[in-house]
Amino acid sequence: MPELTDTLENNHTFFYANMQQVGNALLDTHRSLRKGFPEVVLAEGKEISDIINLLNALTQSTTAIATRVNNEKVAQLTSAFPAGIWHEKARVFIANPQENICHHYATKIAIVTAGNSDIFVAEEAACLLEVAGYPLEKIYDVGIAALHRLLVHLDHLNECDTVIVVAGMDGALPAVIAGLMIQPVIAVPSSIGYGVAKNGMTALNTMLSSCAPGIAVVNIDNGYGAAMMAHAICLRIHQGKKNAQ
Amino acid sequence: MPELTDTLENNHTFFYANMQQVGNALLDTHRSLRKGFPEVVLAEGKEISDIINLLNALTQSTTAIATRVNNEKVAQLTSAFPAGIWHEKARVFIANPQENICHHYATKIAIVTAGNSDIFVAEEAACLLEVAGYPLEKIYDVGIAALHRLLVHLDHLNECDTVIVVAGMDGALPAVIAGLMIQPVIAVPSSIGYGVAKNGMTALNTMLSSCAPGIAVVNIDNGYGAAMMAHAICLRIHQGKKNAQ
Amino acid sequence: MPELTDTLENNHTFFYANMQQVGNALLDTHRSLRKGFPEVVLAEGKEISDIINLLNALTQSTTAIATRVNNEKVAQLTSAFPAGIWHEKARVFIANPQENICHHYATKIAIVTAGNSDIFVAEEAACLLEVAGYPLEKIYDVGIAALHRLLVHLDHLNECDTVIVVAGMDGALPAVIAGLMIQPVIAVPSSIGYGVAKNGMTALNTMLSSCAPGIAVVNIDNGYGAAMMAHAICLRIHQGKKNAQ
Amino acid sequence: MPELTDTLENNHTFFYANMQQVGNALLDTHRSLRKGFPEVVLAEGKEISDIINLLNALTQSTTAIATRVNNEKVAQLTSAFPAGIWHEKARVFIANPQENICHHYATKIAIVTAGNSDIFVAEEAACLLEVAGYPLEKIYDVGIAALHRLLVHLDHLNECDTVIVVAGMDGALPAVIAGLMIQPVIAVPSSIGYGVAKNGMTALNTMLSSCAPGIAVVNIDNGYGAAMMAHAICLRIHQGKKNAQ
Amino acid sequence: MPELTDTLENNHTFFYANMQQVGNALLDTHRSLRKGFPEVVLAEGKEISDIINLLNALTQSTTAIATRVNNEKVAQLTSAFPAGIWHEKARVFIANPQENICHHYATKIAIVTAGNSDIFVAEEAACLLEVAGYPLEKIYDVGIAALHRLLVHLDHLNECDTVIVVAGMDGALPAVIAGLMIQPVIAVPSSIGYGVAKNGMTALNTMLSSCAPGIAVVNIDNGYGAAMMAHAICLRIHQGKKNAQ
Amino acid sequence: MPELTDTLENNHTFFYANMQQVGNALLDTHRSLRKGFPEVVLAEGKEISDIINLLNALTQSTTAIATRVNNEKVAQLTSAFPAGIWHEKARVFIANPQENICHHYATKIAIVTAGNSDIFVAEEAACLLEVAGYPLEKIYDVGIAALHRLLVHLDHLNECDTVIVVAGMDGALPAVIAGLMIQPVIAVPSSIGYGVAKNGMTALNTMLSSCAPGIAVVNIDNGYGAAMMAHAICLRIHQGKKNAQ
Amino acid sequence: MPELTDTLENNHTFFYANMQQVGNALLDTHRSLRKGFPEVVLAEGKEISDIINLLNALTQSTTAIATRVNNEKVAQLTSAFPAGIWHEKARVFIANPQENICHHYATKIAIVTAGNSDIFVAEEAACLLEVAGYPLEKIYDVGIAALHRLLVHLDHLNECDTVIVVAGMDGALPAVIAGLMIQPVIAVPSSIGYGVAKNGMTALNTMLSSCAPGIAVVNIDNGYGAAMMAHAICLRIHQGKKNAQ
Amino acid sequence: MPELTDTLENNHTFFYANMQQVGNALLDTHRSLRKGFPEVVLAEGKEISDIINLLNALTQSTTAIATRVNNEKVAQLTSAFPAGIWHEKARVFIANPQENICHHYATKIAIVTAGNSDIFVAEEAACLLEVAGYPLEKIYDVGIAALHRLLVHLDHLNECDTVIVVAGMDGALPAVIAGLMIQPVIAVPSSIGYGVAKNGMTALNTMLSSCAPGIAVVNIDNGYGAAMMAHAICLRIHQGKKNAQ
Repeated sequence: MPELTDTLENNHTFFYANMQQVGNALLDTHRSLRKGFPEVVLAEGKEISDIINLLNALTQSTTAIATRVNNEKVAQLTSAFPAGIWHEKARVFIANPQENICHHYATKIAIVTAGNSDIFVAEEAACLLEVAGYPLEKIYDVGIAALHRLLVHLDHLNECDTVIVVAGMDGALPAVIAGLMIQPVIAVPSSIGYGVAKNGMTALNTMLSSCAPGIAVVNIDNGYGAAMMAHAICLRIHQGKKNAQ
Repeated sequence: MPELTDTLENNHTFFYANMQQVGNALLDTHRSLRKGFPEVVLAEGKEISDIINLLNALTQSTTAIATRVNNEKVAQLTSAFPAGIWHEKARVFIANPQENICHHYATKIAIVTAGNSDIFVAEEAACLLEVAGYPLEKIYDVGIAALHRLLVHLDHLNECDTVIVVAGMDGALPAVIAGLMIQPVIAVPSSIGYGVAKNGMTALNTMLSSCAPGIAVVNIDNGYGAAMMAHAICLRIHQGKKNAQ
Repeated sequence: MPELTDTLENNHTFFYANMQQVGNALLDTHRSLRKGFPEVVLAEGKEISDIINLLNALTQSTTAIATRVNNEKVAQLTSAFPAGIWHEKARVFIANPQENICHHYATKIAIVTAGNSDIFVAEEAACLLEVAGYPLEKIYDVGIAALHRLLVHLDHLNECDTVIVVAGMDGALPAVIAGLMIQPVIAVPSSIGYGVAKNGMTALNTMLSSCAPGIAVVNIDNGYGAAMMAHAICLRIHQGKKNAQ
Repeated sequence: MPELTDTLENNHTFFYANMQQVGNALLDTHRSLRKGFPEVVLAEGKEISDIINLLNALTQSTTAIATRVNNEKVAQLTSAFPAGIWHEKARVFIANPQENICHHYATKIAIVTAGNSDIFVAEEAACLLEVAGYPLEKIYDVGIAALHRLLVHLDHLNECDTVIVVAGMDGALPAVIAGLMIQPVIAVPSSIGYGVAKNGMTALNTMLSSCAPGIAVVNIDNGYGAAMMAHAICLRIHQGKKNAQ
Repeated sequence: MPELTDTLENNHTFFYANMQQVGNALLDTHRSLRKGFPEVVLAEGKEISDIINLLNALTQSTTAIATRVNNEKVAQLTSAFPAGIWHEKARVFIANPQENICHHYATKIAIVTAGNSDIFVAEEAACLLEVAGYPLEKIYDVGIAALHRLLVHLDHLNECDTVIVVAGMDGALPAVIAGLMIQPVIAVPSSIGYGVAKNGMTALNTMLSSCAPGIAVVNIDNGYGAAMMAHAICLRIHQGKKNAQ
Repeated sequence: MPELTDTLENNHTFFYANMQQVGNALLDTHRSLRKGFPEVVLAEGKEISDIINLLNALTQSTTAIATRVNNEKVAQLTSAFPAGIWHEKARVFIANPQENICHHYATKIAIVTAGNSDIFVAEEAACLLEVAGYPLEKIYDVGIAALHRLLVHLDHLNECDTVIVVAGMDGALPAVIAGLMIQPVIAVPSSIGYGVAKNGMTALNTMLSSCAPGIAVVNIDNGYGAAMMAHAICLRIHQGKKNAQ
Repeated sequence: MPELTDTLENNHTFFYANMQQVGNALLDTHRSLRKGFPEVVLAEGKEISDIINLLNALTQSTTAIATRVNNEKVAQLTSAFPAGIWHEKARVFIANPQENICHHYATKIAIVTAGNSDIFVAEEAACLLEVAGYPLEKIYDVGIAALHRLLVHLDHLNECDTVIVVAGMDGALPAVIAGLMIQPVIAVPSSIGYGVAKNGMTALNTMLSSCAPGIAVVNIDNGYGAAMMAHAICLRIHQGKKNAQ
Repeated sequence: MPELTDTLENNHTFFYANMQQVGNALLDTHRSLRKGFPEVVLAEGKEISDIINLLNALTQSTTAIATRVNNEKVAQLTSAFPAGIWHEKARVFIANPQENICHHYATKIAIVTAGNSDIFVAEEAACLLEVAGYPLEKIYDVGIAALHRLLVHLDHLNECDTVIVVAGMDGALPAVIAGLMIQPVIAVPSSIGYGVAKNGMTALNTMLSSCAPGIAVVNIDNGYGAAMMAHAICLRIHQGKKNAQ
């Protein structure tokens, strides 16, 4: 077994650990090196002044992105970052879009939704993955109440390296897709639905209970988390291809 | 608005209301007239002597049936009712099978399961519907993890008047079927599954949250309830046909 | 066992599967053929522009209906569809009422509520069933706290082919009705109540736990789902009668 | 406002507060004076030696009663208290039945169950109230699935001062009874049922959500608690009558 | 066993069953005869025009009371019923206060709260009981975090016939009071608290789990239900006293 | 948009859809072609005769594996398949180990547990991945209560293509690992723990709530699901490498 | 065993029990003597006039503090108490800051948060502890997604006598800290997060399920409760030091 | 801000981090130095051979303790460690009691239970604290149903430095005690109770919802966790006293 002190001195991941004090926040400035994607500011629950300070600090080394930016906050963000871009459906704000981290990865990601109302989650994921430079295949509104809508898209799905599937209500779509495909499926429950849909809890449990193989799940409405998992998977595929050449 | 006393005197349903004291129980002896199917004894949670007394009383006017009869109780029931028949998988005991209430209804009922482990619920329903005299179409183990298994059976399903669909785990099958068929779908969540399947709660919520039209749900593992709903539907179809002739 | 390719080629239901791209949505345009009722737009959670586009597309082949249309959205819908009709209590908007799909079915449906506050759910169901052309029997505010209010209506109930029963709070009414009638009962929990009523969860569980035979349940406040189940049942009764003539 | 020290010195209830160390337990020996009924030993979760010690101590001043005594424990209790009586259905053991606290109260209590399987809870209550000397009216197995069984007993119910109603599954019976009677209804959910009945949680919530007036609820299967509430009510009625003479 | 038809004809309670159609509502006009207190209109979830119609109908035979009347509705109610009185804290509106049903019962009811924030529930109960004519003892803000505040009031509590105890957060007060008194305790959980207090669910469960004897529970924030239970208890005590004279 | 019939005829995945009737079960015999891993028999909830029949059928074309095989069932399986191998800790039985589907993939998978008691889940995953031919890195008992145990293994983790992390109780380990690594993390909650650990629900929610990027979750104790997700990811990496060569 | 009356007369704690009637409230005026910190007014759920009266009464003997004072209430409080100070982030209002109860305790308390959004809870605790006179060490935004941010602060943490750790979402930080330190850790779940974070329930359960030793938990967002626990601990350490000198 | 590498090199706590591979387990051998108490083996969920190996490894440097040792395991443990001592009520096994880590701390800890059935939790805590050398004050069976039992012990409680209070059912006792005392209260919910007591969940929520100051909570039945929190508090008091001398 290796000695602890040796480990700490020689572990490269650990030396990618740096930080910057921004007001009360401790920004994880080496996240980009450690995870291949910069720290993203979750705007929900934060005050506008904190969000602006954090984005400002991020602009100094990387793309500065905020998620869950609602209509009220976007005006102040736009006046703070005139070059910023606002993806309304996705609720994503990019303060410095010109400095994006686009890599043109040799992989492709599909993003599927069961219904029209699930698109806001899909677009949050799509927006972040586009920043990262992934080509995307978007297939929306193909839920199981009319199965044929999905079947015509199977060939498009099969060209992708991983699939993000967003579904609310009964949340059954990811399992149907995982039953038909060989690629890893990232299931995202959405909070769409009423009554026993319980703001996404039922969709979540459906996805976790599925016996279809090759499926894993992220939190309700967590487009960001799905994008990061897809990114982690595709980054490894991309590196594998590059190393193999 | 009709007068209350008139209503009570002239309401036929109400005069089908009779009862018989059996130990502590008050047997609903006119259930058969009022509902087209006799009262059934739920053996679970009852003492064996009570079950035997109730079945004895029922044998005097109708078919005497007990559900949820486990292995321990069946021996005593068989010695009390030597002509009785035990449907092991269905956990149903019929004390006097010769006196069944079979009507050869002009309707047909499909019973479908998602998995092999859901069959015990399907068989409880099947057993009661066979007593009532319905022709059945059983299609087992066609869950959504391998969708093609269901698609080959669509024609058989379309010949039936109503469909009972049993599914545990993610409980997604009834919604897929309701999306493909025009007949009413009776969804039965089963307690099969582990972890977030929560003994059928997730399958139940999935079924209730589905946006596929023409679906209604009964309690977890409630094969009896599904059979009674199918019976209520088919009885009305049957009567409609007969009256129209 | 039939061959899969044969099945797919010859299955009529499947060829009723068509679709139309409307913005991000994939409209299920053959739903009317497959289910006997057109796709309905759930307005809740959708943006007004999407709703208008979907209704527009539907008007080309069938009646265009939106449910859960609140006060804010109705103004814009009315200006987009000047001939449209707004059922306020039911929260249902019909964009092209003249082209309704009314069939004058040879069946009758009862709609019952326990309380006055449950009527908004009952009216959603009623509104859709009236579009479909069913004669209805509405019996409102007959909950179990004053049982005699229900008893005077038993004869009216017995003339119907199926009964939709909406109840909030304790949700006990459907079981009482199922105990008195032979027709199938479709129970709808409403979100009315406070404290342990838990926005309809208690009424839902009460309905599912009932041991009265001939009852099945739809999601909380799901007037649409109840109407579709009643429609599926009555369509089959209607077809049975017609075929038998 | 009274002074605290005065209060403590002159408060009679407080001077009825005495106790006795029995092993690890502190027996509340003046409970009988303070509450009109002695402390009862809940056998569930206690070791047999502790139960015997506690009953022994109680025998010195009052009737010594243990509830929830299962089959395993009863043998040891009988050998410790040869004069003891075992009420099997009620799971109640009375160590010294000859010294009971019977008062022949001028009140009467009804105990009603929805089903046959709920009787074990009703009998726990009945057993304790009989020890206390109340005349009882037992009406069992009159659940709402066959309402006429209850209606024939309304006159008997109306002769009582309070009603204990035990129901499992949908738990709807107490509300129906409270709708028909003027006396206070003590509702007891039982753990009977399966699936969404959730060991009595659904019955409990149904009872609490009822809008019928004059109803209050105790814990699931809590026959003891129902008896104590009925006793508190009837004791006050009894005292009122006595003082008024 | 009595015959069913005899029962129905001779049961007096049943003949107190009358009703009046008011818009969609079926008013239970004989509630006052059957329960000793008129039907009360729960304003929450009802439209203002329905509330006014119902109150109007009630004024013709009894006191017309609405509960859970918020600030928005009270203006319209006051203009409809100029003689009406509005109890703000209690959220109770009495349309015709001069015609109250006051009986000057020979009983007294205590109403206790754990905290200052629980008073709105206590006042709903108090307001209804004052209409009914009961003398009340109000003891507010005596929760267990400072036990001495309760102890100084024990003598006042002991003069009452029953006690309503309202508590939010931990909900422990009713059990402490039931441990000290012989009278029946009606426990009312309030929705006051945050986090795991879960809008009153924790207080409710605490009250139901208590092992103190002589306690029963109503729904969260249900001041009305507590008042009706207290009324049912005290009515019986009052009648007992009167009959004994 | 492609035509539906074209799609169905030309979709290769769909023609990998075959099945075999085995008793009541419909075996998905082309699963191996469609998903790269054969159908696995979940023994839990199945009768022994069904399990043997299913394994027998599978042996004809692929490796026949059963999971969740407990001590009672293993004797009968061993006598049915004398060449079978039993992995006790993993509860996995392989009926025909010689015919395994080992591919020597050019990828490596890490399996980590927080505690010693979580190993049974890790071993289920490990066992299936070894059958598939993946080299594994097992790192057990490195939970966050003593963080240094994990830090010494960071270099080993960094050599792997994906990481399966099993944790019960607080379930915090996967998030800590995802914070330190760039590879995709598959989090598996285990049912280990007591009280609020709620049989794995708390660990599940912790994992889903984590804001660490690059993490997705499977059902509680679902070693099989984690293995299938890891397999889906690594298969794609493996194929990418092979195609790039 | 001591006699009860002796106990009551000689128990000093009890004689510190005094109270003052303020409107409906009973102020616990000796709380400061009994607990070392005055009663604090929880403004949430109280009307502004009640809050002002309570603070007024408190100003006569001690520091008058209100917590959970939102933006709406602060204007009225400031006009009632012109010398009052408003801590916006902490939502704490101190009516008479000059008369604080500062003691300069010989102990130090650390307050740590996982994220930036948890600071409002931390500041509530900080604000109350500063009133009490404790030196504080605030370490904010050091959650486990970037562990190195915590590690650089370990020396500062080790100089404190107890640590309050606030975390939302996965709530894993307190367990990591408890694994590294010897001092008692007071864990505070915050309501920050979405989906399965369930307003702090997941963080709460994570903290309670942790197997790290030396950790105890308070209610969600309960900065006040954490401060009072830290105060109780440090007061005892302070007294111990003073007595030992 | 300090440099990360400096921090890691000079942090003493970190160098107390050592470990030993024992089978699959990684024993935290420096826990005693880091936390003042050795790692304790939770026997529940572990195989007997693993438990023996872990205890064996611990005996080499410290006291070897296992908790939650049931009757089945104790025989094998006793034969492996003939000098071992078994505390049956506490379910604690100490393999090498002679080498205990007793320090005779200058602090005292009270352990209180509400009921007799809660003692098994209290004894687990007591057993571990006795190993650590703390003098204890045990006060059992003083729940709030008979409050006077607690009041006679107030003087004993006031002599202690911290109080562990175990309560099941309603869990109200810790709040009552915290209202009367100045010392920190560690509340432990027990799983004792039935129905809505939900295996300790209600007691847990009650304790967390309490507004009494100076209280914090550990997991259900977690006597170990309560002991470790009491130890962390008292260790700091002890050190404070020693340093102050």
